[in-house]
Amino acid sequence: MKPSGALAEFPMLAGECRLGYYVQAVRQAMISDSELREGEVAVDMPKASDAGLIFIGRIRTPWKSRDDTPRQGSHSGPVCRLEIFEPWVPALKGVDFYQNLEVIYWLHHSRRNLVLQSPKHNGLTRGTFSLRSPVRPNPIGTSIVRFVGIEGSTVLVRGLDCLDETPLIDLKPDRCEFSPLAAQKGGEGEAE
Amino acid sequence: MKPSGALAEFPMLAGECRLGYYVQAVRQAMISDSELREGEVAVDMPKASDAGLIFIGRIRTPWKSRDDTPRQGSHSGPVCRLEIFEPWVPALKGVDFYQNLEVIYWLHHSRRNLVLQSPKHNGLTRGTFSLRSPVRPNPIGTSIVRFVGIEGSTVLVRGLDCLDETPLIDLKPDRCEFSPLAAQKGGEGEAE
Repeated sequence: MKPSGALAEFPMLAGECRLGYYVQAVRQAMISDSELREGEVAVDMPKASDAGLIFIGRIRTPWKSRDDTPRQGSHSGPVCRLEIFEPWVPALKGVDFYQNLEVIYWLHHSRRNLVLQSPKHNGLTRGTFSLRSPVRPNPIGTSIVRFVGIEGSTVLVRGLDCLDETPLIDLKPDRCEFSPLAAQKGGEGEAE
Repeated sequence: MKPSGALAEFPMLAGECRLGYYVQAVRQAMISDSELREGEVAVDMPKASDAGLIFIGRIRTPWKSRDDTPRQGSHSGPVCRLEIFEPWVPALKGVDFYQNLEVIYWLHHSRRNLVLQSPKHNGLTRGTFSLRSPVRPNPIGTSIVRFVGIEGSTVLVRGLDCLDETPLIDLKPDRCEFSPLAAQKGGEGEAE
C-alpha cells in the first residue's frame, strides 16, 4: 500500500519503521481548520497537557480521505492492519485467543474545540458529547473489531472505519468476551 | 462525598472546581511503583508526548482504593457522577437522549511500561494487549454505562468500575444505539 496524504513525502520501505517521520507527519495533520457552520460553537481550547499519549502503532486501512471512509466499520468489511511499534510488540502475546478486540485510536485530523456541532449543516446543533463525531476535545475513536490473524508484529482485523495512517493508542480484548473468561480464571486485577 | 487519596489535601467545596489542584494531584498519583512479578517484562518507557489529553471532567464513584473497586461495572451498580469541567459543559446538550453512553477515562494510578503481565502472580504471563488490565502504555479505560440523569453540569450514570476521582476524557453515545439513529437521520460525518 502506497503512503499518501501527510505521509506521502516519507515513503516507507517494507518492514522499516520510520517512526520519527511518522509522528512528525501526524502532528502536522493535526492542524485543523477554523470554519464554523451555522449554530456551531467553538471554545478557546485549553492546552491539552493533562496527560500524554504515546502512539503504539499505526493503522493501515484502504481509506485515504474522509469522504471514502465508511460511517461505521463492519465485521464483513475489508481487512485492516494494526502495525505495532517497538517496544510494544511482545505485548501481543495471547491476542489471538480472542474473536473480538477493542481498538482505540487517535483521530489525528480532528479539530478539538467545538462544544456544539451541526452535523447536518442545517443550524440545528447537538452537543459534542451526544455525537460520535471525530471532532471532540480528546479525539479518541473506539471500535470493536473481528480478529483475523497475526503476521509478525501486525494484527489483521475487520470492522474499522478510520483513515489510513491513523495512530493506534490501545488494543484490548472486547469487554463482553473478556469478562466471563477473567471471572472464570479467577485472576486478580485483570479487568479495569 | 469527602475527597480521599491524592486529593485529600485539597478539600473541594461543593460546586467549586479547584481544577489546578486536581490536575496536580492526579499527576502526583501517576508515579507508579517499579515492582515486577515473576515473568513480567517491563520496557524503557518512551516519552509519552505524541499527543496531549485534556481532562474534561472528573468521575466520582464510591470506590476509594483498588481493592474496593469491582472488577467490572454493572448497570444495576451504584450511581456514579461525571462532573464536567468548563468550557465543555455546553457539549452535554442532547446527552439525555441516550440510554447508554460510552465513557472514556484516564487510569491515572497505572504504570505504563509492562509488555508481559502475570495477573495471577503465578509466573504465567500474558501480553498487555490480551488483557483489560489498567496497566498499559496508554492507560485508557472504556465503559458502556446506563444514563440515569443530569444535574447541572453533572451526568449521573450506572455501570462504572473505576476509582473515585478518575479523570474523564470523553463521553459519547454507545455505538450500538447511535448508529441506527445516525443512519436514519442521514447526518454526515456523525459517526467515527
